[in-house]
Amino acid sequence: MSRLIKIYDTTLRDGTQGEGVSFSMEDKVRLATRLDAFGIHYIEGGWPGSNPKDLRFFRRMQDVTLKHARLAAFSMTRRAGGPAATDPNMLALIESGAPVATIVGKAWDFHVTHALETTLAENLAMIADSIAWLRPRMEEVLFDAEHFFDGFRANPQYALETLKAAAAAGAHWLVLCDTNGGTLPHDVAAVVREVRRHVATPLGIHVHNDAECAVASSLAAVLEGVEQVQGTLNGFGERCGNANLVSIVPSLVLKLGLDCVPAANLGELRDLSRFVAELANRKPWASQPYVGDSAFAHKGGMHVSAVLKHPETYEHVRPEAVGNHRRVLVSELAGKSNILWKAREYGIDLDQSTPETRRILDRLKTLEDEGFLFEGAEASFELLMERALGRHRPFFALDAYRVIVEEQGADGEPVAEATVRVRVKGMLEHTAASGNGPVNALDHALRKGLEEFYPSLKELRLLDYKVRILDESKGTAAKTRVLITSGDGRETWGTVGVADNIIEASWQALVDSVEYKLRADERRGVAG
Amino acid sequence: MSRLIKIYDTTLRDGTQGEGVSFSMEDKVRLATRLDAFGIHYIEGGWPGSNPKDLRFFRRMQDVTLKHARLAAFSMTRRAGGPAATDPNMLALIESGAPVATIVGKAWDFHVTHALETTLAENLAMIADSIAWLRPRMEEVLFDAEHFFDGFRANPQYALETLKAAAAAGAHWLVLCDTNGGTLPHDVAAVVREVRRHVATPLGIHVHNDAECAVASSLAAVLEGVEQVQGTLNGFGERCGNANLVSIVPSLVLKLGLDCVPAANLGELRDLSRFVAELANRKPWASQPYVGDSAFAHKGGMHVSAVLKHPETYEHVRPEAVGNHRRVLVSELAGKSNILWKAREYGIDLDQSTPETRRILDRLKTLEDEGFLFEGAEASFELLMERALGRHRPFFALDAYRVIVEEQGADGEPVAEATVRVRVKGMLEHTAASGNGPVNALDHALRKGLEEFYPSLKELRLLDYKVRILDESKGTAAKTRVLITSGDGRETWGTVGVADNIIEASWQALVDSVEYKLRADERRGVAG
Repeated sequence: MSRLIKIYDTTLRDGTQGEGVSFSMEDKVRLATRLDAFGIHYIEGGWPGSNPKDLRFFRRMQDVTLKHARLAAFSMTRRAGGPAATDPNMLALIESGAPVATIVGKAWDFHVTHALETTLAENLAMIADSIAWLRPRMEEVLFDAEHFFDGFRANPQYALETLKAAAAAGAHWLVLCDTNGGTLPHDVAAVVREVRRHVATPLGIHVHNDAECAVASSLAAVLEGVEQVQGTLNGFGERCGNANLVSIVPSLVLKLGLDCVPAANLGELRDLSRFVAELANRKPWASQPYVGDSAFAHKGGMHVSAVLKHPETYEHVRPEAVGNHRRVLVSELAGKSNILWKAREYGIDLDQSTPETRRILDRLKTLEDEGFLFEGAEASFELLMERALGRHRPFFALDAYRVIVEEQGADGEPVAEATVRVRVKGMLEHTAASGNGPVNALDHALRKGLEEFYPSLKELRLLDYKVRILDESKGTAAKTRVLITSGDGRETWGTVGVADNIIEASWQALVDSVEYKLRADERRGVAG
Repeated sequence: MSRLIKIYDTTLRDGTQGEGVSFSMEDKVRLATRLDAFGIHYIEGGWPGSNPKDLRFFRRMQDVTLKHARLAAFSMTRRAGGPAATDPNMLALIESGAPVATIVGKAWDFHVTHALETTLAENLAMIADSIAWLRPRMEEVLFDAEHFFDGFRANPQYALETLKAAAAAGAHWLVLCDTNGGTLPHDVAAVVREVRRHVATPLGIHVHNDAECAVASSLAAVLEGVEQVQGTLNGFGERCGNANLVSIVPSLVLKLGLDCVPAANLGELRDLSRFVAELANRKPWASQPYVGDSAFAHKGGMHVSAVLKHPETYEHVRPEAVGNHRRVLVSELAGKSNILWKAREYGIDLDQSTPETRRILDRLKTLEDEGFLFEGAEASFELLMERALGRHRPFFALDAYRVIVEEQGADGEPVAEATVRVRVKGMLEHTAASGNGPVNALDHALRKGLEEFYPSLKELRLLDYKVRILDESKGTAAKTRVLITSGDGRETWGTVGVADNIIEASWQALVDSVEYKLRADERRGVAG
C-alpha cells in the first residue's frame, strides 16, 4: 500500500481571487458535486464570515450529500484582543455547517507587526485560541500558516512557534503556505525537511505560482513527507494563480505511484478541467499539461508514424489515462468511439458500421468547424444526433422573428421588443412581447406562441445564460457562442448556439432548450 | 564573482513547433536583434538543412551584427551509413554562416533501434563523426542529447556513452534534453548529478513542459551544476511548450543571485515577452509569472494598504525589476487607498480628505452595486473619475439609437441594422448601418456619425469584446457586463458597460471607448 496524499481543492475560494474568475452559487454547487465524484478529499467552499454569498452557499450545501469529499469553511483567526467565542468569523464557521474548518494565521513576524499591527505573542494566542475553540465544535481543524516560507527565512524560530501553537491547540493539519509564490522548489523542500524535525502533526502544502514553480514545489513537498496538497483546478487564483491540481494529481498518481485520487477517475481529468473553465467563462488553455488540446498533438511525418507504432517514443503518459487523446495535426479524426459512447448514454442505438454513425460524425465535424462545442450542452448534442438520424420530429417551426432595441435621449431607458411567427400543430402563431433585453424579449414572445399548445412549457426555467466570444480579436464582428442551462424542476439540461450575430446564437440555444423540454415531456408521457 | 549561466534561446526553432506559432523572416530578424540586446548568449535560428526558409534567414543574418549573442544553427547528426563530409545537413550548417552548430542525436537505445532503426554502435558513430567533422569548421559545437532522461532511465550506460562519444569528438557543450517533458525535477537533478560524475564537458539543460515542471527542472539542473539553459520566450513550443525563459532568467538572477543576463536588462523583460507574443499573434497570458498583467495585481482594501506601505508583504520581487508594475484592482472590495492610487496613476490629483474623493467613492460604490467591474476597464474608470469631478467635456451626445435584428424562415440569415442620432459640435447627425450583429451595426452607425468631425477615429480598432452575464441564474433576464478592449496603434485601453440589456451594455462600452480615444488625442494635441 503506497502513501496516501490527500487533495484539498480551493477553487471555490482562492480560485475566485483570480482576475475575472467568479462563479454563481449554482455553479459552485455543480462544481462541488463534480469534485466529489472525481475523488477530491477536501473542498473549500468559501469564507462564510467575510461574505454573505459564501454563507448562503454553505447553507445550500446542507441539502447536498457528498459521497467522498469533506466540505471545508475558511476563516482568519479570531481578531486581535477579542475572545474566540464571540468572534463573528468563528461563529460563521459553526453556522456554515461544514465539517472542516481551515484557519489562516500569520507565520511571518514582519506581517504580524507591520500588516496585522499586533504583538508576536498576541498572534500566537490568536492562533491557539481559535483552534482550541473550534476543535470540539468541528470534525476537523486545519491551520494554514500564511507566508510560512518567507516567515521561516526571516525568523525560523517564530515561524515554527506558530505551527507549535496550532498543533498544541489541537489542529489536525499544519499547512505551509507560500502565499507570495516566490519560493523555489529546492527551498520549499529544505524548509519542509526542517519543519518535520520539529512537529509531528501531518503537514500540508499550499503554494502560488509567481515563479512558475507551484506544481514542482508541491511535488517537492510531497517527496519530503507532506501528506496534503492544496491547489485549484487549472491553477486559477490571484496574480499568477495557485498550484494547478490538474497537473499535480496525475503526476502524484502516474509518476510517483502514490495513492491519491483513484487512478480510474483520472480518465475524467480533462472533462473536469474543461468543466471549470466553462463555468468560469475562461477559454481553455490549449497547451495545458496533461489535458490541453495540444498536450498530445503531433505534427506530421516520421514523428507521427513513430508515435503511432510506439506511443512512448514521444508521449510521457498515455493520453487516455487523463481523458485526453492524441491528435495528429494535419487532418483530425473525430473520435468515433466517443460518439458511440455518448449515443448509448442518450439511449440512441448506433452500430459502429452504419451510415448513420458516419452522418453524425460528418455533421459534428461541420458544426465544430463553425465553433460549436458540446461540452455542457448535452441537450443540443442529443438533438443533433436525432436530427442527423432523421428521427427528429420538430414540435414547432420558425417562420420569422424580429427584435428591436431602442433608446431615446442620453438618460432614457432602452426598450426591447420582439415579434415571433411560428407554426405549431398546423396553426400560424404571431406573437409580440417585450423584455429586459433582446433575448429576454424573444424568449417571452416564443413562449407566448407555444404555451397554449404545450402548457408544460410554463415549468421551463432558464437557469443560466453564458456568452463566449470566439476569436475575440475581431471585436464586435466576432462569432458568438451562447450556452443556456435550463431546468423544469425534474432535470436540468444545456443547449448551445453559435453565430456571428449574438441574437441568432441565443435564439438557436433557446429553441433547442424548448425542443428538449417538449421531447423530454413526451418521453415521460406528459400531455402536450 | 558568481557562477555564469548562459542562456540559449530556441524560440525561433523549437518555439515555432508550437501550435499556431509562426514567424515571418523579418519577424525572426527583429526578434534575434531584441534577444541580442536583452543579453541572451545563444540564439538558435533554425534548421538550415531541413528548411529552405531557415537557410534564407541565416543568409539574411549575415548582414546583421549581433553585439552579444552568438547565432546557432541546428541539425540532426549525419545520416546512418553515410559520411559526414557529404551529408546535406552538415553542409547546410557550414552554408548558414552561423558560428555555432547544435547537433541533436539519440541518447535512448529504444529510439535508436525502434525510431531511427539502426544499431547502437552506428548511432554512436553518427554522433562522433558529425561533431568531429564540424569541430574545425565552426567556432563552437553543441551536442543535444535527445530523450536523455528517458534514455538514462532505460539504459544509463548507453545514454552516458552517447555523451562520451560527443565529448571525445570535441563537443564544447553536452545538452541533456527531456524531449517528452515528463521527467520530474527531482529526477532531473539526480540524473544531472550522476552525469557529472562521468563527464567533464560543460552541461546544458533543455526540457519541455508536459508535467508543468519545465521551469523548476531547469533551475534544479542549474543547482546541480549545469551551466547553460535552453528554452523559449513565453514557453512557446510543441505540445505543452518548452521551458519558459521569461520565468527562468529572473529567477536565476534575482533569486539565485547567479550571473546571467545583466540585472539592469531585466527591466526589458515584460516588453520582450509582449513583443514575441505580438509577433506570434498570441494574446498575452494575463497571469504569466513575472510579466503578466495580473502578476502584481492586488485586490481588497486592507491588503492594498499593506502592499503600499510594505510591498514585500505581498510581492515576491519588485515589479519594476522585471519591467512590470503593480496594479490595484478596483473591485467590490475597493477601499479609499485603491482609488487614490488609481487617481495618481492617471495624473488626477486627489487629496484624501476632499469631498471629490468622497464623490468618486460614492459613485463607484453605486456602479459596483449595479455590477460594474473596472478590472481591465481603466479607461472607463478614468472617465468615471472625470465625470464625478465635473471635469468631463463630452465630445458628442446621444439623441437616440435603434437596432433591429430579423430573420425570415428557418434557414434564413439574420439581418442586423442600426440607426443612431447624435449631436456633435452643434449638429444633429442621423446615420444608419448594418453589421454582423446588433453591436457591430451600432458600432458602424456611430462611427459614420462621428468620423466626419473626428477623423482620427479611423484609427480606432476594437481589439477584443467580452460578454459576461451577471447573476446567470436569472437566465436571459440577467444583467450583462460587456468589456471592450480598443487600440489605435499607440495605446490600448479597456472600457465597460453594464445593463439588463446586452445592446445597452455594449453601447455604453462603445461610447466610453470613443470618448477615451478623443480625449487621448486631445491630450496628445491631435486636431479633432
